[in-house]
Amino acid sequence: MLKTYFPILDWGRAYNKQALSNDLIAAVIVTIMLIPQSLAYALLAGLPPEAGIYASILPIILYAIFGTSRALAVGPVAVVSLMTAAAIGEVAAQGTMGYALAALTLALMSGVILLVMGVFKLGFLANFLSHPVIAGFITASGIIIAASQLKHILGVDASGHNLLELVLSLFEHLGQVNLPTLVIGVTATGFLFWVRMGMKPMLMRLGLSAGAAGVATKAGPVLAVVFSTVAVWAFGLADQGVRIVGEVPQSLPPLTMPSFSPELLRDLAVPALLISVIGFVESISVAQTLAAKKRQRIDPDQELIGLGAANIGAAFTGGYPVTGGFARSVVNYDAGAETPAAGAFTAVGLAIAAVALTPLVFFLPKATLAATIIVAVLSLVDFSVLKHSWNYSKADFMAVLATILLTLGVGVEVGVSAGVILSVLLYLYRTSRPHIAEVGLVAGTEHFRNILRHEVQTHPTLLTIRVDESLYFANARYLEDYILNRVSEDKALKHVVLMCPAVNFIDLSALESLEAINLRLQEMGVTLHLSEVKGPVMDRLQKTHFLNALTGQVFLSQYQATHELTPLNVAK
Amino acid sequence: MLKTYFPILDWGRAYNKQALSNDLIAAVIVTIMLIPQSLAYALLAGLPPEAGIYASILPIILYAIFGTSRALAVGPVAVVSLMTAAAIGEVAAQGTMGYALAALTLALMSGVILLVMGVFKLGFLANFLSHPVIAGFITASGIIIAASQLKHILGVDASGHNLLELVLSLFEHLGQVNLPTLVIGVTATGFLFWVRMGMKPMLMRLGLSAGAAGVATKAGPVLAVVFSTVAVWAFGLADQGVRIVGEVPQSLPPLTMPSFSPELLRDLAVPALLISVIGFVESISVAQTLAAKKRQRIDPDQELIGLGAANIGAAFTGGYPVTGGFARSVVNYDAGAETPAAGAFTAVGLAIAAVALTPLVFFLPKATLAATIIVAVLSLVDFSVLKHSWNYSKADFMAVLATILLTLGVGVEVGVSAGVILSVLLYLYRTSRPHIAEVGLVAGTEHFRNILRHEVQTHPTLLTIRVDESLYFANARYLEDYILNRVSEDKALKHVVLMCPAVNFIDLSALESLEAINLRLQEMGVTLHLSEVKGPVMDRLQKTHFLNALTGQVFLSQYQATHELTPLNVAK
Repeated sequence: MLKTYFPILDWGRAYNKQALSNDLIAAVIVTIMLIPQSLAYALLAGLPPEAGIYASILPIILYAIFGTSRALAVGPVAVVSLMTAAAIGEVAAQGTMGYALAALTLALMSGVILLVMGVFKLGFLANFLSHPVIAGFITASGIIIAASQLKHILGVDASGHNLLELVLSLFEHLGQVNLPTLVIGVTATGFLFWVRMGMKPMLMRLGLSAGAAGVATKAGPVLAVVFSTVAVWAFGLADQGVRIVGEVPQSLPPLTMPSFSPELLRDLAVPALLISVIGFVESISVAQTLAAKKRQRIDPDQELIGLGAANIGAAFTGGYPVTGGFARSVVNYDAGAETPAAGAFTAVGLAIAAVALTPLVFFLPKATLAATIIVAVLSLVDFSVLKHSWNYSKADFMAVLATILLTLGVGVEVGVSAGVILSVLLYLYRTSRPHIAEVGLVAGTEHFRNILRHEVQTHPTLLTIRVDESLYFANARYLEDYILNRVSEDKALKHVVLMCPAVNFIDLSALESLEAINLRLQEMGVTLHLSEVKGPVMDRLQKTHFLNALTGQVFLSQYQATHELTPLNVAK
Repeated sequence: MLKTYFPILDWGRAYNKQALSNDLIAAVIVTIMLIPQSLAYALLAGLPPEAGIYASILPIILYAIFGTSRALAVGPVAVVSLMTAAAIGEVAAQGTMGYALAALTLALMSGVILLVMGVFKLGFLANFLSHPVIAGFITASGIIIAASQLKHILGVDASGHNLLELVLSLFEHLGQVNLPTLVIGVTATGFLFWVRMGMKPMLMRLGLSAGAAGVATKAGPVLAVVFSTVAVWAFGLADQGVRIVGEVPQSLPPLTMPSFSPELLRDLAVPALLISVIGFVESISVAQTLAAKKRQRIDPDQELIGLGAANIGAAFTGGYPVTGGFARSVVNYDAGAETPAAGAFTAVGLAIAAVALTPLVFFLPKATLAATIIVAVLSLVDFSVLKHSWNYSKADFMAVLATILLTLGVGVEVGVSAGVILSVLLYLYRTSRPHIAEVGLVAGTEHFRNILRHEVQTHPTLLTIRVDESLYFANARYLEDYILNRVSEDKALKHVVLMCPAVNFIDLSALESLEAINLRLQEMGVTLHLSEVKGPVMDRLQKTHFLNALTGQVFLSQYQATHELTPLNVAK
């Protein structure tokens, strides 16, 4: 019981020297990678650079205690940082105390939402984000994030929460471009693209193993940070208008207090919910991918608790919303992390960095951080989901297209909400006009098939209709209209059999429609029968008066119905 | 073609003397009934009394031209009047010009919404109001309407848009009760209840036919109006604090102009949508009930156009939102109306009343109008839907209960919206955790049944799973978890067959889950097969790579799958 809520008790008991050594090595590598990444994502969220580091310390430790993934690395990630900027940009101006306070509050609210979802086992709610909607959202977010960082590469002021605003704002400020910044930005971006594409093959040619070369390439951003910082310092570029990180407090994460202002809580409620769900979906898919490789198990509801605890931790230690990140988790896994203790050691490494190393980033140009973000997020951009969904299902395609267009054109919150709502509406629309087939007997078998698709036997007095959907309020009237129109055209009919092998439930509205169909058919002198009603549906019908009122019978099989109602030769 | 949009061309051509005489008689009876009813519903909507009469003139004529029902009588109805009061009470104070203007605007918006729904054939949207939610909403609205009229019976000021506010407000003002008003109110209410319950049997005992007695009882409210008006005039009760209708302009409906202020349009958008849908549902169910009795056909999309035209007419002639009313339509039908011309004659009758008879209602006490409303709406109150739904389906019960409680406790808009949203959410929840059964062969047949419910044959190397739901984003992961958990527990398994007779479609998310299941099972050395995949689903799968990647086969029948995959004796 206790182990369910504290997975640390499970792996902690079996911890040994070998695991310790593997975890320590992984922690060192991840720490080095996380320092520039944390600063960069804080920049993306519109927060001071140290917020990114603080958000990676206590949250990692709390996740190590409560989470079930052995390799997941929790902290700021690109999409959640963007969503944070979009949400708190609505309630406070960037750079003010109110802005940082709103970030803490957002982290707290996300944490509480995740925790509640975990305790009440509501993880299935995340399933309402369909795969194609997530894919479209991530792609569109990647584009917006990259666009939002161009201002740092150009050294201009620009702002906006969607692609249109960002591009217009960039054009407006194009006259202010700062040349030294542009040189640093473009060089760093080019270098990082090369690191991603060409460095690993080069290192392997130099004799490194694929794994080691892969891990080493993750240090690329650190190289870019070091070189550009030295360049700014050596050539005094800060005086020529290159914007730098500047002073970062040398301190452990401070104890902070989120706001409980009812107005702020209300304004942030929807963003907090979206951030929670998006963060959870991103985190769980990373965790499950990594766990599957080692045949480990992820408990989605316990993951919610782990992420909830991490976010609450972020709220009280100067951070902002966090989740399990793809890049950092993969590095952690590839570097050999065996248990969540690797995360705890990473937290110690970052704490040391926060206390000792922050003066070293004083001259770090923001353009370099922007370059690391751009290179990281462009790998998320993948439009192939549009082609897949177009080929397979137009409904999925429409949901993806709406998600991408609205995310780019209006913003992240509208985009992802629209995707979810549209998926649900398209599903409801589809089930509200179910596939209804008139069926006949396949000669020599007991099978019944669509008369339009197969050569089948029918009889003029018998109409057999198979409805391929559960019957509920949204399609009850559709079935009613279909049957009554079909029967009123055909004077020879004496029996209608509704074949129900695909009817998984019948709600009260549909039951009333069946009663109406039964009554109207009776007035026309036609008998209504049912066949192949499923066990659970039959159990429920038996509690009503419908079976007494039914003019015909309920047949166990359509074969039997045909046999009893027509002189049709059904002998094999 | 033209006849579709102008049903008048259809019945107008065959119009004859007999129909004319029947329609004229019906019109006289309906006119007499409508005068007090129209005044009363205007009072309920918070509008001056003449608004109720104006709303019954042009709208009736427009519906006669565009509508498809032969007997439907269009005009103000109780529930829509209540919803109008709730909606415009939010944007303007009662008795002001802004209030009347908002009512016109609301009628215009409803009209446009209905027209657009009709032209684009969106009538099916009304199906998302499930039968139990409508039943609950009507019951709760009836209670609120009755409660809102108690102030007129007591002669006090009170207000509120939900039951709690109304009751509290009544208690607060209990000290102001006006005795003469109370006497009139209670007497009128008691008399009208007697008319409804005891007058028809009495008239029948006196020798009237059941039909004539039924129509005569509808004149009860007119008697109450006449007697109470005379009493107020004769005893000078207006000077003793009995509130009266007072001066009503003697005029034909004026030409009015709704507002096009963007702010007002925005504020009224949601109420206008709700009023349109609720009004349409009420109207169409009355129309279909009456049409079925004479084997006539109602075209729902054309009905939307007819109601849309009626509401636009109301907007420009001093009215407010209208729809087809139950009581007035039944009277029209029972009085022998044969064609929509009866409606047009009623409109003429009401126009005469508006010009000539309004001075007669100067001394009419509001308490009498309140009494007619209370007696009319209490017949709508019926809690039996709670019992039905409790017995049949807890999901339906929850939706009804929420609708009733929120309508009573918060208000009509929240109540009906919550009912719709909750029905949809409960449906999504149900389909997100589909019924999944492990099945086996019923000996001596080709049928497969749930191993928990039936005596069936299985084989240790073969797991056959039947999923009783279409596979889509909300349940894809559920299926994935179910299969992988089940398989990982059972080391003897070599084959898994997913039996799909109840799978009506597979969306892209579910396809990706099937791919994941296939891959994971492959890693465990287990082969995945499908069986009994429906034609449309198979067509779609054939466009993907899934069937190539599938480790096993797709069997036409589960019988064939069992035969080929196991040594199980499947010979009959």
